[in-house]
Amino acid sequence: MSKIKVGIVGYGNLGRGAEQAITQNDDMELVAVFTRRDPSSVVIATESAQVCHLDDVLQFKNDIDVILLCGGSATDLPEQVPALAKHFTTVDSFDTHALIPKFFDEVDVAAQAGGNVSIISVGWDPGLFSLNRLLGETVLPQGETYTFWGEGLSQGHSDAVRRIEGVKRGVQYTLPIEEAVNRVRSGENPQLTTREKHARVCYIVADEGADQKVIEETIVTMPNYFADYDTTVHFIDEATFEKEHTGMPHGGFVIRSGESAQGDKQIVEFSLKLGSNPGFTSSVLVAYARAAHRLTQKGATGAHTVFDIPFGLLSPNDPAELRKRLL
Amino acid sequence: MSKIKVGIVGYGNLGRGAEQAITQNDDMELVAVFTRRDPSSVVIATESAQVCHLDDVLQFKNDIDVILLCGGSATDLPEQVPALAKHFTTVDSFDTHALIPKFFDEVDVAAQAGGNVSIISVGWDPGLFSLNRLLGETVLPQGETYTFWGEGLSQGHSDAVRRIEGVKRGVQYTLPIEEAVNRVRSGENPQLTTREKHARVCYIVADEGADQKVIEETIVTMPNYFADYDTTVHFIDEATFEKEHTGMPHGGFVIRSGESAQGDKQIVEFSLKLGSNPGFTSSVLVAYARAAHRLTQKGATGAHTVFDIPFGLLSPNDPAELRKRLL
Repeated sequence: MSKIKVGIVGYGNLGRGAEQAITQNDDMELVAVFTRRDPSSVVIATESAQVCHLDDVLQFKNDIDVILLCGGSATDLPEQVPALAKHFTTVDSFDTHALIPKFFDEVDVAAQAGGNVSIISVGWDPGLFSLNRLLGETVLPQGETYTFWGEGLSQGHSDAVRRIEGVKRGVQYTLPIEEAVNRVRSGENPQLTTREKHARVCYIVADEGADQKVIEETIVTMPNYFADYDTTVHFIDEATFEKEHTGMPHGGFVIRSGESAQGDKQIVEFSLKLGSNPGFTSSVLVAYARAAHRLTQKGATGAHTVFDIPFGLLSPNDPAELRKRLL
Repeated sequence: MSKIKVGIVGYGNLGRGAEQAITQNDDMELVAVFTRRDPSSVVIATESAQVCHLDDVLQFKNDIDVILLCGGSATDLPEQVPALAKHFTTVDSFDTHALIPKFFDEVDVAAQAGGNVSIISVGWDPGLFSLNRLLGETVLPQGETYTFWGEGLSQGHSDAVRRIEGVKRGVQYTLPIEEAVNRVRSGENPQLTTREKHARVCYIVADEGADQKVIEETIVTMPNYFADYDTTVHFIDEATFEKEHTGMPHGGFVIRSGESAQGDKQIVEFSLKLGSNPGFTSSVLVAYARAAHRLTQKGATGAHTVFDIPFGLLSPNDPAELRKRLL
């Protein structure tokens, strides 16, 4: 059987993760990485694949089955996905929750026009966590759903602290508050404020001579990002930072705590403990690339989300084998 | 919008649970319960629904959208599901893992012949646990999958102890062994024997004058059921049994412990803590009844499993609303 031919747009943490994830899936091969940089300046790990400029992507229309879009949600994906969905089957990890409906509609128009399939907002949140929020409220219509994130590095919050004057290097970790998690797991169904659910911890390397008090105050009072949370700021030296804070762990849990109709407590929990956030997210993208390709082969078109994809389409294995071995 | 009209075959714990679960879903209504007993001897909770003999089920061909089969996997379902799938959209909870492929094929033939949809082996294991076994190995192709059950009451093992001479009443609980669970959650990927994963605990009310030593020995050495496990047997009085051991709690976890391609540990866990096993299983059946009905409306036919059903079909809500609210 011929392999599924994959292209990757964007070669940051996620793109590199996707390249590696493809190596764990024997039914897939990487054809090319597309970049907006000078292709000769980008060295990839896959010897058999090319590095090309994004402007040349349409030349691969007949040589690529699925394109994984691995750029950022702020500016890259809103532009790239509708543009590429006209010509390719695509999978992306667009994660600006509030803008998903608009993004879906734009991608849908493009994918329908091109007769292609696009699966949007794939990953773990949005993605696997979304699936579990949906499952939870559907099988337990009476109850509450809770999403906790962490312990993990938040990219957006880390970027925010790094923009503060006097911050040389900085990371921010989101921590679920254990007391809140335990109350939820006990079936209590508490009403929790933002501050009661998560805490934030920053590790900062300050510029020489910078006023640490000012930096700390600027962080903990920052609206939207920190003001609604209990935030702890630690100042450390650069060697410690390099040693302990350059990984990208993350995770969290979705808990549905409900009651079935005869009054019995029922608790459903899905949790992730991730050594590498981009490593896992890209593995999920690659599994959904397989599903996207199969949907295209079946003649489907338009934008899809994880809610529309049966898990059987994610697996390289035959349905009869899956039923026998895993059901 | 007209409600989805549901029939229930079998009125034991699962059938009663399904009847109650329907009351939590405004888009569904129970039309009739079908029984092999004398219908006049069966009193159901839903005033607007009928109780009918199973022999009369075909009279409801135009009045029922989906039939939930709530009988046992040993003899009821292998006979009833293929027979009814010729005439109705069906959902069942057939759970004899080893016989699922044969059951699927038989139901598929019947459902195809009748132009109906059947979703087989729905519940939590097989069912939601199966989905998580599939998801885990697909997003983390390199790793190990572990399923633990309990703490919970095992119906089959409880039946087995009750068949022993001198046992008046008895229940058996399956317990996951915490040390094993912790080793798996730590990412160690241990090889675990049957005895290392689960323990079994029995609570027995003995007949007056029965030899408790003989009962205990008969239990702990019983092949297939107990011989491969560490089993503890407690003898209690009937009042204690009535007070503490008449519920049907269950649960468990599916853990995928893997490594993404850059060597990072990634752990995915799905867990259930169920106050009532039939209460939860029937809630899952009802959600899949909605999906089965929709598939029928779309013109699908044949046997399906949870692997074939996108989660979006389980929800009563509009896809655009789900994307906005849950993705």
